[in-house]
Amino acid sequence: MANFELTRKFVEELKVLIDKQDNEEVSRILDDLHPADIAELFEELNIDEAKYIYFLLDDDKAADVLIELDEYDRLRFLESLPSEVIARRFIDKMDSDDAADVISEFDPNRQQEVISYIEDANVAGDIVDLLNYDENTAGGLMAKELIKVKENWSIPTCLRSMRRQAENIDEVYYVYVVDNNGKLKGTLSLKKMLLSSTGKLVSDIYNPDVISVGVDTPAEEVSNIMDKYGLVALPVVDHVGRLAGRITIDDVVDFMREEAGKDYALASGITGDVEASDSIWLLTKARIPWLFIGLIGGLFGSRVVGSFGGILDLYPQLAFFMPLIAAMGGNVGIQSSAIVVQSIAAGTMGLASPIKKLLKEFSVAVLNASVLAGLAFVYNMLIGSQEALTLTVSGAMFSVIIFASIFGAVVPLFLNKIKIDPAVATGPFVTTLNDIIGMGIYLTIGTFFYNWLA
Amino acid sequence: MANFELTRKFVEELKVLIDKQDNEEVSRILDDLHPADIAELFEELNIDEAKYIYFLLDDDKAADVLIELDEYDRLRFLESLPSEVIARRFIDKMDSDDAADVISEFDPNRQQEVISYIEDANVAGDIVDLLNYDENTAGGLMAKELIKVKENWSIPTCLRSMRRQAENIDEVYYVYVVDNNGKLKGTLSLKKMLLSSTGKLVSDIYNPDVISVGVDTPAEEVSNIMDKYGLVALPVVDHVGRLAGRITIDDVVDFMREEAGKDYALASGITGDVEASDSIWLLTKARIPWLFIGLIGGLFGSRVVGSFGGILDLYPQLAFFMPLIAAMGGNVGIQSSAIVVQSIAAGTMGLASPIKKLLKEFSVAVLNASVLAGLAFVYNMLIGSQEALTLTVSGAMFSVIIFASIFGAVVPLFLNKIKIDPAVATGPFVTTLNDIIGMGIYLTIGTFFYNWLA
Repeated sequence: MANFELTRKFVEELKVLIDKQDNEEVSRILDDLHPADIAELFEELNIDEAKYIYFLLDDDKAADVLIELDEYDRLRFLESLPSEVIARRFIDKMDSDDAADVISEFDPNRQQEVISYIEDANVAGDIVDLLNYDENTAGGLMAKELIKVKENWSIPTCLRSMRRQAENIDEVYYVYVVDNNGKLKGTLSLKKMLLSSTGKLVSDIYNPDVISVGVDTPAEEVSNIMDKYGLVALPVVDHVGRLAGRITIDDVVDFMREEAGKDYALASGITGDVEASDSIWLLTKARIPWLFIGLIGGLFGSRVVGSFGGILDLYPQLAFFMPLIAAMGGNVGIQSSAIVVQSIAAGTMGLASPIKKLLKEFSVAVLNASVLAGLAFVYNMLIGSQEALTLTVSGAMFSVIIFASIFGAVVPLFLNKIKIDPAVATGPFVTTLNDIIGMGIYLTIGTFFYNWLA
Repeated sequence: MANFELTRKFVEELKVLIDKQDNEEVSRILDDLHPADIAELFEELNIDEAKYIYFLLDDDKAADVLIELDEYDRLRFLESLPSEVIARRFIDKMDSDDAADVISEFDPNRQQEVISYIEDANVAGDIVDLLNYDENTAGGLMAKELIKVKENWSIPTCLRSMRRQAENIDEVYYVYVVDNNGKLKGTLSLKKMLLSSTGKLVSDIYNPDVISVGVDTPAEEVSNIMDKYGLVALPVVDHVGRLAGRITIDDVVDFMREEAGKDYALASGITGDVEASDSIWLLTKARIPWLFIGLIGGLFGSRVVGSFGGILDLYPQLAFFMPLIAAMGGNVGIQSSAIVVQSIAAGTMGLASPIKKLLKEFSVAVLNASVLAGLAFVYNMLIGSQEALTLTVSGAMFSVIIFASIFGAVVPLFLNKIKIDPAVATGPFVTTLNDIIGMGIYLTIGTFFYNWLA
């Protein structure tokens, strides 16, 4: 199986084969594809074509494809199947974390029904356990499948037990060492097992320096810990320190991608994780809420500008620079909120106090504001603008940049303090408020200078 | 070693101990810390305190800490050390990919010097090889350390060789199978080794379905492949299919984080990957370029608005809604470019043709534009605005939303076509252009309606 790239030609040829019901040739093609490729292919097929293909797959591959599908397609597909088929053909073939993810998408009655059809009581129990955890915690990310050995075992006992346990697990990254009460003691690396003589006990060779998280640890912290310490698997312990499960890097990478996508979307004024290939309706739904907020803000802003109608009547040239001042406030505000949001998410805020952080933001703002207001001043001098206009534009630009910088930094710091995701602060929210306040500052300064110099 | 959280108290107490030169107590504290924690601690210390701590660490840990430091701190630290110390104390203890990363940060003369002090000629050769690859390709991400076995070996031969090879490697995820010419044939899972009888050959049990990339594969594609197929390690082959190295998930996670951070920064108008804890100078430098572009754009915009000075003189109330129209164009443009940029980066654009993609964007835009222009119309009717103003605001909003949507989507698609990172299209660039064009559209429509209805 080489790398596969989905092409329009491939999809069209396959559709012809499906149309001809050429089971043999379609099966041959599917054999060469990875489950992730088949999931990608599904997005290009209609539901009947997808079903035709799906029932040509063997159970293991079918279960793998199901996990790779996106939530929306998966639900649409499973809705048409009886609970018994879902339990026997799919859930039984999945790791406990994937099984719990899939089942959690059903309504509670369907969940019960599917679980009741799972044959192995241990598997069903594991899934029920996992369903209790919030999906954004370590408990929600972990799987129950892992290899554990007791610290007082000999290497041969250990190897025998590992062989038995390994049968149910896709990949073995670490072997966990527990005491007689099930408490996590450390890890046993496969490399150490390869290099050790068989006369030793597990307790002689295991590594007690193990990093673990609790079932309630937030997913974001899990992701930061695995990234910081470069881990491919992380054990999860319950409230009394017993080994409850393990999180693998692939689940965390998925989580990270989703989070990065969400933050980026929020900064760009999009709600939800949409892609260019989603439907027109989904795309519109993701975009209109922030535009609506922008509209309300903008209409309110028009009242603010309107309240300066007198000065605009007298000096309409003040209007020429309104878009510049509004844009500058918006841009500066996004910059400072983005830096704070990213640093909070990555856990790299450093140890300085909030006052120190704002003082720093203030210094950066003064530097930026001086340069830009200075350049605007030179520009207006060169084109021979009125004195009052020149002073207004530069004075307002200086004030707006400083205000917007501080405002852009304070909002996410404050939201984080009151436990709201600071990422919502970026994008249209900060921009819109900065627009309105910027216009107020600009026209107030304009009124002052024109009255003074007139 | 439990999870460690760096606190101000901890740093202050440690600084007191360093001041007292209490080697014993400081060493005791350092023993409990992970290299990544020590690197984090370094950011809170001055250079002398950092050096004091650094020379209390044993060589292996010192090398690990060095890799965890950010580029800027690492260079500053290494500058003060002789090349021989760098080669013997650090480079020799690192994996080849980390060693190559560290060395690549030096100037060419220093690179030569450090490499000449590396004792093991194989290690030096590997590093020189790796330095030839672009850091944004699979060759630049890969390490040379891996375990490979030949397909015609017996399991006992294979185990003996693996034991020998494993001594130089931190973690073993996969064992690669090659033929007599060194060509990659497949993988041997450690789980399979645990479960297999010793009478078999490697060729009986290895898995030939191996996904690999070439040394020139772009890092972004590497990251998408590892994510899509859920891989923790990916073999890299040279131009004739020989196994050249392997990429592990931790390196790709770092790359992904950096890329996500860069895209987010670009969308927010920040150049370079800055954090809130960086210096005032670095923060200003990262923020002023886009603000400067915004200034130029805004000044140019003031000329555009100025060219409509006549109509603004007559009807200054037109100015009230300028910030709303500008903001709406900016917001819509960012949304549509962000969706396209993210979909290109994630490889999820789907197979539709560019024309189809733009038609879809157009449909979304018409939906959004109708709703928002309709709401603005109702608002102006309710507050009893002049007929001409009501028609101008709604007409311009409709046009600007549609224009900005299409423009926001076309720019990144075009940049991607001509092989420029489409992420630069988002943020201030699209916003600024949309601002200017939006003002032009608004005032043109305003001129039309006021002339018609006056």
